[in-house]
Amino acid sequence: MEQATYERMKRFFSPGHIAVVGASTRNQWFSNIVKYADRAGFPGSFYPINPNAEEVAGIRAYPSIRDLPPDTVDFAVVMVKSALVQGVIEELEEKGIRNVLLISSGFAEMGGEGAARQDRLTRFCRENDILLMGPNCLGFINLAANVSTFSGGSVEGELLAGNIAVIGQSGATTEMIATKLLKKSLGISLFATTGNEALLTSEDIMEYLVHDGKTRVITGFMEGFRDISRMKEIALEAAKRQIPIILIKVGRSEKAKQAARSHTGALAGNDSVMEGFFRQYGIVRVDTIEELSETAGIFSRCRLPKGGRLGICTLSGGLCGLYADLCGRYGIELPGLSERTVAALKAVLPEFAQPDNPLDVTGSGFWGGMGEILKILLEDENIDIVAPLSFVPASADDSMPMLFNQTFLPMAAGSPKPVIPLCFREMTEFARKYYHEHGVYFIEHPEDSFKAIAHLIGYAEFQRGFSGR
Amino acid sequence: MEQATYERMKRFFSPGHIAVVGASTRNQWFSNIVKYADRAGFPGSFYPINPNAEEVAGIRAYPSIRDLPPDTVDFAVVMVKSALVQGVIEELEEKGIRNVLLISSGFAEMGGEGAARQDRLTRFCRENDILLMGPNCLGFINLAANVSTFSGGSVEGELLAGNIAVIGQSGATTEMIATKLLKKSLGISLFATTGNEALLTSEDIMEYLVHDGKTRVITGFMEGFRDISRMKEIALEAAKRQIPIILIKVGRSEKAKQAARSHTGALAGNDSVMEGFFRQYGIVRVDTIEELSETAGIFSRCRLPKGGRLGICTLSGGLCGLYADLCGRYGIELPGLSERTVAALKAVLPEFAQPDNPLDVTGSGFWGGMGEILKILLEDENIDIVAPLSFVPASADDSMPMLFNQTFLPMAAGSPKPVIPLCFREMTEFARKYYHEHGVYFIEHPEDSFKAIAHLIGYAEFQRGFSGR
Repeated sequence: MEQATYERMKRFFSPGHIAVVGASTRNQWFSNIVKYADRAGFPGSFYPINPNAEEVAGIRAYPSIRDLPPDTVDFAVVMVKSALVQGVIEELEEKGIRNVLLISSGFAEMGGEGAARQDRLTRFCRENDILLMGPNCLGFINLAANVSTFSGGSVEGELLAGNIAVIGQSGATTEMIATKLLKKSLGISLFATTGNEALLTSEDIMEYLVHDGKTRVITGFMEGFRDISRMKEIALEAAKRQIPIILIKVGRSEKAKQAARSHTGALAGNDSVMEGFFRQYGIVRVDTIEELSETAGIFSRCRLPKGGRLGICTLSGGLCGLYADLCGRYGIELPGLSERTVAALKAVLPEFAQPDNPLDVTGSGFWGGMGEILKILLEDENIDIVAPLSFVPASADDSMPMLFNQTFLPMAAGSPKPVIPLCFREMTEFARKYYHEHGVYFIEHPEDSFKAIAHLIGYAEFQRGFSGR
Repeated sequence: MEQATYERMKRFFSPGHIAVVGASTRNQWFSNIVKYADRAGFPGSFYPINPNAEEVAGIRAYPSIRDLPPDTVDFAVVMVKSALVQGVIEELEEKGIRNVLLISSGFAEMGGEGAARQDRLTRFCRENDILLMGPNCLGFINLAANVSTFSGGSVEGELLAGNIAVIGQSGATTEMIATKLLKKSLGISLFATTGNEALLTSEDIMEYLVHDGKTRVITGFMEGFRDISRMKEIALEAAKRQIPIILIKVGRSEKAKQAARSHTGALAGNDSVMEGFFRQYGIVRVDTIEELSETAGIFSRCRLPKGGRLGICTLSGGLCGLYADLCGRYGIELPGLSERTVAALKAVLPEFAQPDNPLDVTGSGFWGGMGEILKILLEDENIDIVAPLSFVPASADDSMPMLFNQTFLPMAAGSPKPVIPLCFREMTEFARKYYHEHGVYFIEHPEDSFKAIAHLIGYAEFQRGFSGR
């Protein structure tokens, strides 16, 4: 990626002061923008442009772009009617504002006149060095720089900064992904919805994220790719930097392909060709928002394992069977324990517990904590990843789980072998934060999590092949 | 089922006053029992038996079984060391107490001496008409009669009475199932953990539940069946009464079969034979606790559909593609809309919305509510089930979702075609209760829910074939 392009993107996503053309209180957009910027800790100011109001939502308004103070505003959000957009962009250009988020719809997604309008706009932006996101999108939240231009209403949860990026063309789907991550106490670097992608594309943003130094995991929702060869280059660069790209790519079914066509006009393409492309370039394909969040969570907090052999530890024979079946389904190997491991476990477990993998510590074998057991499993050379029993604390005063987890959590975060606590009892908001503070992810929904572990194993295998190229 | 057997089982699960032999404060069992009985609204009294204490956990204790007041106690929980159990049961028999829950371990699960001990005990119980649950189990909660003898500590959530029964040999797994149901605001009729099943078996309890008049859905966790021909009879009787049996049956993988053998000595058997048996007798097989809870939820609140054709309605083209792929995977048909439906939808949706299935009402097409749209979809003769968009309310004051949902929820509960709200925004505890109060279940985790809908469709198909026999 060229340095100048990178710097330009960085400025785009880190504006200091933002004009909002068409800001009003007749719809939720402007108030949403202010609300999310506030939640993101935005230190800059908003300059609503509205010829008919002294102020909008309590913020001083300006009658026109021309009336803005000089050399202050470096970004504009545009939400006027589509027919007025071209004129607004030209005025912004005159004022020297060349970073623009265009929220308005009524462009290529309408076909006909709208498509022609978008073509003209795109040409003007290219000729005048204007970087434009949209149209027909909701904007972005850049938690790495405490900025938000997001005009949607459905990203829930505390805006936690972190190392996972979220990109999507579809507003609602991308909002659901971000919400799911934040509710799991997974931090976000950049969240962006790209809409029609008249200029700025998902691929542009992915390329930027591969280089931004904040993002460790890139996630997204795709209906199709505009430029497969570009996507291949980005995937290779991401692979070199060990930044996994995790995508929901719809189009396995005919119905979904139809939906994609009528939604953004994207051609979903032949799904088995797509599958092969993903595999070859190490792109992790997931099918649901939940599988995405669990996969992103595990990637964001675990090192890559040396191999794919999992050691499981729980407190019930019934659960051992259930987890073994899930591992079987997702191709995760549960190796037998070495003789040394069996002997060591016998010394710390109750007499009637049978050391095996999955390991049933029994209903009384956990009272001594998980520290010794985890240590023994981590020392077994046949095991690459460990999922040890953890009790979910309801609060900081929930003494049994807190004491229990303290026997092994300090060992987990620093471990070269991934340690992913396998939770017993219902997950709580407190616990998600607690695991986050301890630098580990957790298994809350076993099926989604075992899929995620299979992705971690698959990606590590891809990386071993890749670094050997 | 013989009337006398049924009456005996009913008495077993509805004791008036309960002796607890071996009650102490050295472990959690007795305090757990008292706590859960309290939460279940138990109106009776506990009689702890402990020769060394005046009272246990604040409740007056009796030095021996002999010292209990005459003709008062009709049930005993036994938690003494395994070597003392035989004597205790004999004393109980002398006192006329013949309904017993045996929590203690140290029996067949140990093999050798323990197995011999269990054989002797079983013989004595049979000869003396003693009904015994256990050993090596956690007891039961009968919310249909406000009784609990449950000695475990991990059933969480409000103890909501309802129409779903939960049975399992494995304590921890069964606790997780009950917790998952209660947290989803799904009510339970009877929750029972059966342990070694020296006398009372899972099959006995299932047979009872088919007849109890409270249970509409039976769920359970099984490592193996003791008596397949008996299970067939029960499944047929359940099918006649349209009571679905939903089971997690582990043993798809070799590892899981091994785990089952070492856990309860159950033979998991040939899995494809098992699969055929389930299909032939209309038993719904699920693989995870989450799939079980969603399936039970949908069965407990929906009528059986006439066919398997689903109509989906959401607010984003991206989500349409995602849901279409999931339906494709689980074999759920998404029929095209009839011409009449398309015309009717065009009249209520924004100009740019394309009526299709899945239906994208677009980001502005939902402001008029879901009432008219749902009505139109329900009238389409090609559609058997509808999943309409619903916004999740965070609280009763969350006015947009509350107003939106009110446009269609009153129509949903009474509908002959199942209506299952497809939720946008993160699920909340308030919302789970709210949907419960409206008599509908909801789609919170799309993959689990689409699996559950596929089970509903499959079971309805089984029932059509069955009633034609």
